[in-house]
Amino acid sequence: MKTIALVAFDHFTDIDLFLMWDILGRNRHDWQVRIVGRQRELRSAHGLRVATHGALDEANRADVVLFASGKEGVPAALADPDFMAAFQLDPDRQLIGSMCAGSLILAALGLLPGRRAATHPDARGALSAAGVAPDERPLMSIGNVATAGGCLAALYLVGWMVERLFGAEKSLETLRPVLPSGQYDLYEQLIASSIRQGRSG
Amino acid sequence: MKTIALVAFDHFTDIDLFLMWDILGRNRHDWQVRIVGRQRELRSAHGLRVATHGALDEANRADVVLFASGKEGVPAALADPDFMAAFQLDPDRQLIGSMCAGSLILAALGLLPGRRAATHPDARGALSAAGVAPDERPLMSIGNVATAGGCLAALYLVGWMVERLFGAEKSLETLRPVLPSGQYDLYEQLIASSIRQGRSG
Repeated sequence: MKTIALVAFDHFTDIDLFLMWDILGRNRHDWQVRIVGRQRELRSAHGLRVATHGALDEANRADVVLFASGKEGVPAALADPDFMAAFQLDPDRQLIGSMCAGSLILAALGLLPGRRAATHPDARGALSAAGVAPDERPLMSIGNVATAGGCLAALYLVGWMVERLFGAEKSLETLRPVLPSGQYDLYEQLIASSIRQGRSG
Repeated sequence: MKTIALVAFDHFTDIDLFLMWDILGRNRHDWQVRIVGRQRELRSAHGLRVATHGALDEANRADVVLFASGKEGVPAALADPDFMAAFQLDPDRQLIGSMCAGSLILAALGLLPGRRAATHPDARGALSAAGVAPDERPLMSIGNVATAGGCLAALYLVGWMVERLFGAEKSLETLRPVLPSGQYDLYEQLIASSIRQGRSG
């Protein structure tokens, strides 16, 4: 049983967390997914209050750590010494990923191989300012670290992660239940090619 | 200012509610979006607790009413007389839509023109049993009523609704912020064609 920590913070982007949460939450045999945060309850960018399942340091022991995003939430998290100090992540033994502006947290933690990352177009300026080259692809991965840009690229980030742990067939099987009816082939090709084209090392 | 009610219930499918919530929540000028339910707090299919913003009868006064889905949640809602009795919806003055198994609620409320609806493949049997022909498209619309199947078809349902109220350009503008980076053209064509091909009357 693999463990997956979704890292969130106040003012997280609703979809970026919930899409990963729902897709991954449909499988209770191969992995356990939990939302971790510094507070026991977090407030989303659009005002939903959600209880966390555990503290941030759970991420250090998880097999997979995926960071949510947030236009206001990420800058606040970066400025919070307690948030940043909680992480002792290791890409040699963990898969690590981020959605949109979450790549700024990976940058600050020194976890971006090649100092290059995918992110939401709105966060490209901040990424450049942090000394990281914004990649225009919706997903880019080097080894055990992947970054995604644009909320729905969560499909690719989750797909990349499952593929890396369990293979490509399992990845598509995980994503299929959320794809639009009657368009499975189209989306499966798009997902597979986005993951393949995102591979940079 | 248009009002949009997202109707939810215990054990709603997480993505089906949150995707509509996030996409619509990014615009606070043209509409106001609220989650309505019979209880003050609802539990998602994957166990998140979310507070509702208002009671079910708000839906009767809203300009747009969109029903969430839920493999367990929808049958329970259908069997709850207080839930079903709350609605006095009118497609002559409201836009009405559903995600996945939510079409079963529209069927029970007598709101499906042509007794045909899009739904999640897993809910097609139940829809047939309710006397409604399952449509294989991810979105189908007749007049002011639309049904969508497969969680990510929420893109098409939201797009249809915004297009109907504010035109096609506004629809794509609303969806663009959540699309995967670097794939805007591809998704915008897919969204536009899915909405167009879903139009059945």
